[in-house]
Amino acid sequence: MKMALRACLRTKPGLTALLSQLSCSGHAAARRAPALVAQRSSSSTSQKIKVDFDQSSGVAVMHMQSPPVNSLSLEFLTDVCIALEKLEMDKSCRGLVVTSSQPKVFSAGLDILDMYGKSPEHCAEFWKAVQEMWLKFYGSNMITIAAVNGSSPAGGCLLSMTCDYRIMADNPRYSIGLNETKLGIVAPFWFKDTMVNTVGHRATEMALQLGLLYSPAEALKIGLVDQLVHEDQVLTTATETMTKWLAIPDHARQLTKSMMRKPTIDKLAANREADVNNFVKFITKDSIQKSLGMYLEMLKRRKA
Amino acid sequence: MKMALRACLRTKPGLTALLSQLSCSGHAAARRAPALVAQRSSSSTSQKIKVDFDQSSGVAVMHMQSPPVNSLSLEFLTDVCIALEKLEMDKSCRGLVVTSSQPKVFSAGLDILDMYGKSPEHCAEFWKAVQEMWLKFYGSNMITIAAVNGSSPAGGCLLSMTCDYRIMADNPRYSIGLNETKLGIVAPFWFKDTMVNTVGHRATEMALQLGLLYSPAEALKIGLVDQLVHEDQVLTTATETMTKWLAIPDHARQLTKSMMRKPTIDKLAANREADVNNFVKFITKDSIQKSLGMYLEMLKRRKA
Amino acid sequence: MKMALRACLRTKPGLTALLSQLSCSGHAAARRAPALVAQRSSSSTSQKIKVDFDQSSGVAVMHMQSPPVNSLSLEFLTDVCIALEKLEMDKSCRGLVVTSSQPKVFSAGLDILDMYGKSPEHCAEFWKAVQEMWLKFYGSNMITIAAVNGSSPAGGCLLSMTCDYRIMADNPRYSIGLNETKLGIVAPFWFKDTMVNTVGHRATEMALQLGLLYSPAEALKIGLVDQLVHEDQVLTTATETMTKWLAIPDHARQLTKSMMRKPTIDKLAANREADVNNFVKFITKDSIQKSLGMYLEMLKRRKA
Repeated sequence: MKMALRACLRTKPGLTALLSQLSCSGHAAARRAPALVAQRSSSSTSQKIKVDFDQSSGVAVMHMQSPPVNSLSLEFLTDVCIALEKLEMDKSCRGLVVTSSQPKVFSAGLDILDMYGKSPEHCAEFWKAVQEMWLKFYGSNMITIAAVNGSSPAGGCLLSMTCDYRIMADNPRYSIGLNETKLGIVAPFWFKDTMVNTVGHRATEMALQLGLLYSPAEALKIGLVDQLVHEDQVLTTATETMTKWLAIPDHARQLTKSMMRKPTIDKLAANREADVNNFVKFITKDSIQKSLGMYLEMLKRRKA
Repeated sequence: MKMALRACLRTKPGLTALLSQLSCSGHAAARRAPALVAQRSSSSTSQKIKVDFDQSSGVAVMHMQSPPVNSLSLEFLTDVCIALEKLEMDKSCRGLVVTSSQPKVFSAGLDILDMYGKSPEHCAEFWKAVQEMWLKFYGSNMITIAAVNGSSPAGGCLLSMTCDYRIMADNPRYSIGLNETKLGIVAPFWFKDTMVNTVGHRATEMALQLGLLYSPAEALKIGLVDQLVHEDQVLTTATETMTKWLAIPDHARQLTKSMMRKPTIDKLAANREADVNNFVKFITKDSIQKSLGMYLEMLKRRKA
Repeated sequence: MKMALRACLRTKPGLTALLSQLSCSGHAAARRAPALVAQRSSSSTSQKIKVDFDQSSGVAVMHMQSPPVNSLSLEFLTDVCIALEKLEMDKSCRGLVVTSSQPKVFSAGLDILDMYGKSPEHCAEFWKAVQEMWLKFYGSNMITIAAVNGSSPAGGCLLSMTCDYRIMADNPRYSIGLNETKLGIVAPFWFKDTMVNTVGHRATEMALQLGLLYSPAEALKIGLVDQLVHEDQVLTTATETMTKWLAIPDHARQLTKSMMRKPTIDKLAANREADVNNFVKFITKDSIQKSLGMYLEMLKRRKA
């Protein structure tokens, strides 16, 4: 029940198995009570996030385990941000690997249920959480490595692009990309900026206009991911890669990372409110709501 | 009698056949009366532009048929802009394929006869028309695909770069590139910006400094074109590719395209007058006029 | 006794032979009296720079011959800038090839001895000279080609990136890159800008965060150099390449080069003093001085 789905349906017949699973669980998710952020545990290990922190190496692994497909709901985003913030404040934590505990998917992206039939206030809260996630990850002082062990459309792709390095499972059934246009939605400027910083202007223009989802091999070719390994090796390769990055003095690395990313981060930081207003105004339009509704209906029918 | 020609002569011996044709027709063109824009028909099908619009698919094909080499004269640019504007205002037209009816050439670029021996006022009018063409194509709401079925130097390359996708004939005798420096002329900043957006900063720096014309294979390698097909397949491939683009909801695609291109468009839009003045001041210099004149003489001698 | 050295030691076992030579000569350099700029000859052929200028072709070759590894000391930078300025003012000089007379190394980068144990005033002088070198080379009106006939870490890489074209010896023992972070130092924004203009944002982000040194083959792949040839052919290939560039009218090429580079140059030109202050404040920190000191000690121990 995720943004990327229609695109998957149309262009990736190999994902049918994944789809039936998604739509099924998506239906369950639809009946879930709205997330109440105030009740969230501030523990870094919520039900939906498991963080393994190895004090000896200084490396934490964040396992996303929000069934069925690690949708970035308001609730889940809040958990993720709290977990990240705790690690960020812990001086002994120098590196973070982000990965998924869900089969076949890294993260299916922003949760449509937080955009459909919701009040403008709810939509605004949701969007602020998306911004917060991006600001925290893209600006993290830690070394961040995405262990992309499954499909990673839309917001899932964004999350992986915030990291310093991306290792993806070399399974042609998986795909990655910002496919928002296929759903009639527009990736905001900071999604675009992040992608331009990753694959350049021209590849981004094509990718965003067409809402392209790339196979792992295609993603490697355009530089959307940095390395492909066998599915079983994604996490271990991430850990090995982290060792190389840990050899660099933290202070120099952090200043360098900030120099590269600060202009992009400052652009959103200076325009958060306007960006929230844009999103709310767009997403609450009758035409957009109707198209989201039809999309959800289609998923239910497929499930039935 | 086009900018690119000297470059072709020097570096592409395979183009000799094309050359004799060019210089021959160029001579004829030299005797043509100055274009009188006021007398132009506003019909979308002028003598020099043929537009086939298929209402059922929503796709128009613009055939450039200005002998001998689709030079972008003031007259022809005006025709092209009028045709584009009509399509742009027709809500049922969603996609546009631009191609050439002339053999072996897509467009040979800006017409030197509109820059040589002309009044500053004429040069200014001409340059405004070049700006207008670029602004309209680069900012078009339609899906634009260039079916580059022949050589495409200088302004011809610029026109193809304004499109959303470029398919080129895989014939090693053809070439594409911004080769202005070879003629002693400088591509203006918005030509440069368009190329940077297409192939990146470094490739643009080399291409523009050296006035490089790329073979189709080289152009594909640096990303100056997106796809090569056999000469006979350029137009049909463009139509097939259009189908993929038409599958994307227009509104989302248009907003995305605008987000990618608006900063570049705004730069020229805010500086049109200064850019015209720069051009007129440069092109009317004695030294530049002299070099254009020698170039035209050389073409006539070759013809004789 | 250069920035790049620790990195070389760690990651390039093949460079051990080079290392013993470096550390040996480095030790000698340590005993060298501080450079007195006022005593420098203003001749374009100082002891450490040999300039061969061929009036007939309009091409000069600058041989860097500052043993052992062409470290960019205050003294040497001053020589280099004086030599460049003389050529720049000579209208008959249109092209410049920069190469090394030292075996196995193009330039080992900024001289640590000008940053370690020196007064803030000396550090400021030194940094101004580094800025001056970059401003003069990156903004040169001449065609500049780097004949990279050896390793080229840190400031050596920067120098080669200021040129219009880079030809490197295809010897896997050589490496090139901005490896500052490995020493705990941060490449300033204009090093970063130069690299982004050369290899794009993403490759730069990785390269600078990890302080990567690339083999010639890797450097070619990411576009950090433009061409690889056999060690014996670097200089002759540079001369042949120059001929192609000389075919372009100077005025158009210079305006084009300026259009591409002026925004990057203006950024530093507008912030030179702040950039000097940043450098001095950073380099004179106890922690940074201590780490430079330990590094120099290590080199001495290796020598002994």
